[in-house]
Amino acid sequence: MKDTKSVPEVVARRLPRYYRYLDDLLKKQIYRISSNELSKKMGVTASQVRQDFNFFGGFGQQGYGYNVEMLHKEIGTILGLYSGRKTIIIGAGYLGHALANHTNFKKRGFTLIGAFDIDKEKIGTNIGEVQVYDYANLTKFIVDNKPEIAILAVPRIAVRKVAKDLISMGIKALWNFSYIELEDEDDVVIENVHLSDSLMMLSYKLNELE
Amino acid sequence: MKDTKSVPEVVARRLPRYYRYLDDLLKKQIYRISSNELSKKMGVTASQVRQDFNFFGGFGQQGYGYNVEMLHKEIGTILGLYSGRKTIIIGAGYLGHALANHTNFKKRGFTLIGAFDIDKEKIGTNIGEVQVYDYANLTKFIVDNKPEIAILAVPRIAVRKVAKDLISMGIKALWNFSYIELEDEDDVVIENVHLSDSLMMLSYKLNELE
Repeated sequence: MKDTKSVPEVVARRLPRYYRYLDDLLKKQIYRISSNELSKKMGVTASQVRQDFNFFGGFGQQGYGYNVEMLHKEIGTILGLYSGRKTIIIGAGYLGHALANHTNFKKRGFTLIGAFDIDKEKIGTNIGEVQVYDYANLTKFIVDNKPEIAILAVPRIAVRKVAKDLISMGIKALWNFSYIELEDEDDVVIENVHLSDSLMMLSYKLNELE
Repeated sequence: MKDTKSVPEVVARRLPRYYRYLDDLLKKQIYRISSNELSKKMGVTASQVRQDFNFFGGFGQQGYGYNVEMLHKEIGTILGLYSGRKTIIIGAGYLGHALANHTNFKKRGFTLIGAFDIDKEKIGTNIGEVQVYDYANLTKFIVDNKPEIAILAVPRIAVRKVAKDLISMGIKALWNFSYIELEDEDDVVIENVHLSDSLMMLSYKLNELE
């Protein structure tokens, strides 16, 4: 357990956005930023930015603003992005392919090491840079390779069984795209992705516009 | 403009989650729920639930709790889910396929009417239940069919041009999966989806666990 345990969820959920924004700044070779500028980009107040950072020791503003490189690195460390965590994908359909190709795993410090499916036609093919293996051989693969994270890109009818399998095999983190809400369990962390929330939000904004 | 214009973004962003949860309750044939039970599921306080609902007139609790069917319908209306909004997908790669197949458009009141790509091999095929058309014919299609929402499932290098095209053709809402942050413009609403935020959050939680 880290001493960041008491960080409110709403603050923690802003960290990836800070990190992304700092990443953009570095690409633009901007190395210093004030809490004012940072707050504008984030859509929160400057005081909120300082409060957020105080949960992690404040990241020492010196003179004019923050050192972007240092802030980027510190937030990346808090997010655990430099551990090269081994990750597998369960389900090699369109979604599995899209995730393997699109999410910049490596850039964010995740190492995709394999994909699994039950479909004989998919087994042996590649998605992204990894091979699709037979789901029947998952236990041995996990024992041998010790992945920590599993991405669930399986049909919703399969997700509870697959999650149960994975947890019993020692997987510690599930990134769940099934639209079935998996509940947190002891010693397992879960992120349920609900793409339709974002679509409904778009619809809400469109309603507001009219 | 609706009188909900002053609803804070953080409250608005909870509406899709309320909606999803109420949807689940209806499936389980549960027709009444207290703000206490609702708050537990949502991870906020009961007082927060009541405050949220007060932005929309309170949804009238009578006796014990809320009428689930009525609440579901009212929130769905606020989210604009009963308009059958016409939607197109730009990009018929793995991501376009995954979105066409997985997001329950119809269930959430969106009508997918076509997909577009520049790849000759994809043009004329189907994704989900719709056909892939030539991106070169997009203008005519939009004039004839008047879609309101476009889903951007194109490579990041193409997204700014495609967004500009779509806005100039009268599209009012963009659901953007490119990892390039598109900025809101007058009379156009945008939802930028950053899947890696959720992956970074999972990594953060995993760090906390250790």
